[in-house]
Amino acid sequence: MAQRYVRVKTTQGQIYYGLLQPNRNVVVFDAPPWLGGQTTELELELDEYQLLAPCAPSKIVAVGKNYASHAEEMGTPLPKQPLLFLKPTTAIIADNESIYYPAQSKRVDYEGELALVIGDRCRNLTPEQTRKVIFGYTIANDVTARDLQLKDGQWTRAKGFDTFCPLGPWIVRELSAGARLQTFLNDLSQPRQAASVDTMVFPPEFLVAYISQIMTLLPGDVILTGTPEGIGSLVVGDRVRIEIEGIGSLENQVVSVNNSSLLISS
Amino acid sequence: MAQRYVRVKTTQGQIYYGLLQPNRNVVVFDAPPWLGGQTTELELELDEYQLLAPCAPSKIVAVGKNYASHAEEMGTPLPKQPLLFLKPTTAIIADNESIYYPAQSKRVDYEGELALVIGDRCRNLTPEQTRKVIFGYTIANDVTARDLQLKDGQWTRAKGFDTFCPLGPWIVRELSAGARLQTFLNDLSQPRQAASVDTMVFPPEFLVAYISQIMTLLPGDVILTGTPEGIGSLVVGDRVRIEIEGIGSLENQVVSVNNSSLLISS
Repeated sequence: MAQRYVRVKTTQGQIYYGLLQPNRNVVVFDAPPWLGGQTTELELELDEYQLLAPCAPSKIVAVGKNYASHAEEMGTPLPKQPLLFLKPTTAIIADNESIYYPAQSKRVDYEGELALVIGDRCRNLTPEQTRKVIFGYTIANDVTARDLQLKDGQWTRAKGFDTFCPLGPWIVRELSAGARLQTFLNDLSQPRQAASVDTMVFPPEFLVAYISQIMTLLPGDVILTGTPEGIGSLVVGDRVRIEIEGIGSLENQVVSVNNSSLLISS
Repeated sequence: MAQRYVRVKTTQGQIYYGLLQPNRNVVVFDAPPWLGGQTTELELELDEYQLLAPCAPSKIVAVGKNYASHAEEMGTPLPKQPLLFLKPTTAIIADNESIYYPAQSKRVDYEGELALVIGDRCRNLTPEQTRKVIFGYTIANDVTARDLQLKDGQWTRAKGFDTFCPLGPWIVRELSAGARLQTFLNDLSQPRQAASVDTMVFPPEFLVAYISQIMTLLPGDVILTGTPEGIGSLVVGDRVRIEIEGIGSLENQVVSVNNSSLLISS
């Protein structure tokens, strides 16, 4: 089994990067692995930590319509170049955390996606140079308020709500070219989405190069590579699980809106 | 004169928050002022520091078409709700740093804007609650590759290039309601943009509340409040200066593209 790079919070509230062991213990690193972190003697047992999203990016760059099948189901032509948008990092949640259904929307969709984790500070790369800056691969759900996406034109609100970016559960370093992405809803055995990630219009190396020619990428930054056909809506109570062959599965439940006000004075 | 909150880098490479004195010395804080930073005994003289952008936000949330006059010049109707987009934090540069003209664009525009700096972690606020979470005000230039904005539909690429978010030079705590925003090009005395910030469609308190109902805002986060009419293009060699009454002025020069490749292995 591939090494699984995780980020955890201990019961004492400390945050560590580490390696998940087959027995579910976590061997702790002294720094993020993409910043040269090495294993320490600290090993956490299953009841001593909770999994966080596996990185804490400075930004999440996402790509729209990167599978021909999805562009078709949306009734839109394929972009000639990658179509970029940003999700705020406050949208990130971990495996098993809850997606809050916002009061502003009447249609919230899942979008299963392969996520790339950047390991180096870089800009203006060619596709050939990107191989070494992609530290690894994880799974994302690019949750989208479809009605607000259509209403606003700009996708920031529709894709930017708190909890709208489930990410994880861990990072693997390698991904086989034909790895299969599948999205499952509740207990149904038939996947809602099923595609090989090598049917992307613009593959990972191209995307990273393209983005790096616009904005500097930083270690830990995340790139969402687009969703294949089969998008569909979620209702409160649903559980949505995205599986990518060779990585694992990311599962989250949908709960009703959290409209409590929060103000933490600094 | 109002207190001017700055962020500086010393000649030794340390980064501090502080207060700019009338003699241009900087009295250093022990933490960002919005996190309760207090003045220390360290005082930097003019030749011991350079000004950075006055905060290091986790995100930059920007608002499109927030002055009726600008929506009109773009030939678009006024949005019924604030139209949000995000700029990546890698786009931030300080006062006097250079805007790089990207090779991908043939039309790069200035957009002078009032920027709000958030002081507290907050979400789901009402407009009435936002008064205390706005730590202060600074100036931004929402530099935009106008041709790519029209071509892509999504504004992320057009507004996301490195150096496309000049911000600063400092933060003030209070802003008079009718403060005038003016944008000047080179040595021309006639401003290209001139408007009172109280002619915004959605005022700062409304914007912060609206955004906080979507995404949690964090201390140091920045909100760009939109640009008034008078947008126009920049060419290499131009200097663009944005003034806001009661804050100061933000000036940057436009230089030709930096297409050197960068890869800093971690």
